[in-house]
Amino acid sequence: VSQYEHGISAADKGQFKHFMLKEIYEQPAVTLAAFQDRIQDAMVNERAFGEQASAIFDQVKQIQIIACGTSYHAGMIAKYWMEGLAGIPCHVEVASEYRYRPVVIQAGTLFVSISQSGETADTLAALRDVKDQILASLTICNVPGSSLVRESDLFLMTNAGPEIGVASTKAFTTQLVCLLLTTVVIGRRFNMTQAKERQIVESIMLLPALIEQALAMDVDIEKMSQAFAEKHHSLFLGRGTLYPVAMEGALKLKEISYIHAEAYPAGELKHGPLALVDKDMPVVAVAPRNDMLDKLKANLQEVSARGGELFVFAGCTQKVQAGDGIHVLGMPEMPEILEPIVYTIPLQLLSYHVAVLKGTDVDQPRNLAKSVTVE
Amino acid sequence: VSQYEHGISAADKGQFKHFMLKEIYEQPAVTLAAFQDRIQDAMVNERAFGEQASAIFDQVKQIQIIACGTSYHAGMIAKYWMEGLAGIPCHVEVASEYRYRPVVIQAGTLFVSISQSGETADTLAALRDVKDQILASLTICNVPGSSLVRESDLFLMTNAGPEIGVASTKAFTTQLVCLLLTTVVIGRRFNMTQAKERQIVESIMLLPALIEQALAMDVDIEKMSQAFAEKHHSLFLGRGTLYPVAMEGALKLKEISYIHAEAYPAGELKHGPLALVDKDMPVVAVAPRNDMLDKLKANLQEVSARGGELFVFAGCTQKVQAGDGIHVLGMPEMPEILEPIVYTIPLQLLSYHVAVLKGTDVDQPRNLAKSVTVE
Repeated sequence: VSQYEHGISAADKGQFKHFMLKEIYEQPAVTLAAFQDRIQDAMVNERAFGEQASAIFDQVKQIQIIACGTSYHAGMIAKYWMEGLAGIPCHVEVASEYRYRPVVIQAGTLFVSISQSGETADTLAALRDVKDQILASLTICNVPGSSLVRESDLFLMTNAGPEIGVASTKAFTTQLVCLLLTTVVIGRRFNMTQAKERQIVESIMLLPALIEQALAMDVDIEKMSQAFAEKHHSLFLGRGTLYPVAMEGALKLKEISYIHAEAYPAGELKHGPLALVDKDMPVVAVAPRNDMLDKLKANLQEVSARGGELFVFAGCTQKVQAGDGIHVLGMPEMPEILEPIVYTIPLQLLSYHVAVLKGTDVDQPRNLAKSVTVE
Repeated sequence: VSQYEHGISAADKGQFKHFMLKEIYEQPAVTLAAFQDRIQDAMVNERAFGEQASAIFDQVKQIQIIACGTSYHAGMIAKYWMEGLAGIPCHVEVASEYRYRPVVIQAGTLFVSISQSGETADTLAALRDVKDQILASLTICNVPGSSLVRESDLFLMTNAGPEIGVASTKAFTTQLVCLLLTTVVIGRRFNMTQAKERQIVESIMLLPALIEQALAMDVDIEKMSQAFAEKHHSLFLGRGTLYPVAMEGALKLKEISYIHAEAYPAGELKHGPLALVDKDMPVVAVAPRNDMLDKLKANLQEVSARGGELFVFAGCTQKVQAGDGIHVLGMPEMPEILEPIVYTIPLQLLSYHVAVLKGTDVDQPRNLAKSVTVE
């Protein structure tokens, strides 16, 4: 497992101009650290979650995920996995909403909190509020010994090492690895066959190399970033597990470049946001497969006629024609399950390069703190 | 029950410059039409939902709401009501996401679709996909004889009359009335006492008069709209049932004024969007009660220091001091349960007046169709 020393100084950035860029480039190593000691013989070792893990997982009937900000996006992706791969009911909610409303907690609920710092005020308060009503709690967290780790029944550390840049990058992708491992250990008790588990584990093992391939797109993304630096708006679209990826991409751009980027599930485009799109609002789509892209192209025809530009991150074998305001960025081929993790990488790079072009303070964006420990 | 004739012509607008404004002003009448024949002796008559209604409601164990666009926002509010007032688990999802992922449907699920037209392609497809796995289906719909009405086991018509403006207004508020009635008939079988039901019904009966009071703010809202006409961005904030109201307010502004308005749950502000806020991005908050407003004021202190402007819709007895970039718009006092309905009115008026100032085509915004009957 990779170990990173604490302490903020310019020297720690190594060859990189900013901590954020360094942390983006650490992702092949830290995603490996998030899974390698937890896999044996192509199976996930559930003891990694703690000694009581097996006994607790045997009783789980549904999952409630609670988080804020970037961690909430990780939770949204996990919902697709939990219901689609494990076959267990899974619900996700922003902590500041969940804690202030009267909630209904069903029997057998595993409460999963996700937080880089383990000190996020609303997430911690939500856990404390429901402690007596849940089956058990699990936290996916990056800081050993933090409050969420100490107060949860089970924990799985993300092993990302200290994250200095305020805009979260490696914490997010390692959270996703941990949530995938969690989906497997729960899924075993529901719909997931041993063959399926093996297939997922083998896919996970491809992740560091796939992230390397995505990082190699850096030069192309840097070029692409020039189309955004003068813009004040952007729309990010995705479907399924790629919808939260679009949300995370939009959040990064907001946080460090101060461009008003907003994400929508692609199917909602015609229910309102399409009215906004013109040449001043470039559209970014994360669309690995043809089915989604065909619909999106039909929806956006009017837009490109008005000068709107569409940037599509798509699988290389996709039959997308560039031109007519459509720019295609070919992604490596990968197992579907890894798409939300790998497609996040170019969006991180995009926000980074746009911010550098705009000259903002990449590692310390205005108004934001690294951990939101007060409401 | 009010009856409106079909047919689009300038004459139908009566004294109003646009259909949208006419429809906004119809809301006292149509919300009355949405509840009056369904209430007897301060109780909701569940036969209004159809002959099989009582037998079906007896077996409901959870609710799954599916909708798109504005109707989705109504569904989000209903989730707070269903869990908070009725004590039944309730989940809400955008139709285009729900239908394309493998979902887990628990036993005893009442599938509730919400659609103005009853022909929304994704919502209808979602219903057809799950028909064999659900307990029963209920649709909240405005068009008699539409596909959703014909294909659902139960229906409750919104009675809003034809809605011509593409940006939905009276369809939304009448959906909310219907969802409140639904919460009562389900709630009876869960946590809701008869006394509580009476209290809710008596509150609902206050609604038309409260909407009249909100409409009387029109002149103030028209003045307020001048602060938005030259802006390209806006941020809408709310908590609890007022968060979907903020989403709906932002969507209206997007749809007809082409201002890039985005909504956030207020507690998520520090997790990213705060970096965006400056003098070019006015913030609108719907904050009926002091608890939320105190937190919000603390969060926004830095923003007003940088010239950011905050417009707060708040209860009249609130101790909010205007000044320092804070503008307060006093709302009538009302039962908490009606807040999401009544607070929607000034946000509809705001988007209308901004659009008129900008000279856009209010009733037929660019790129949008009234009913999204294809994907």
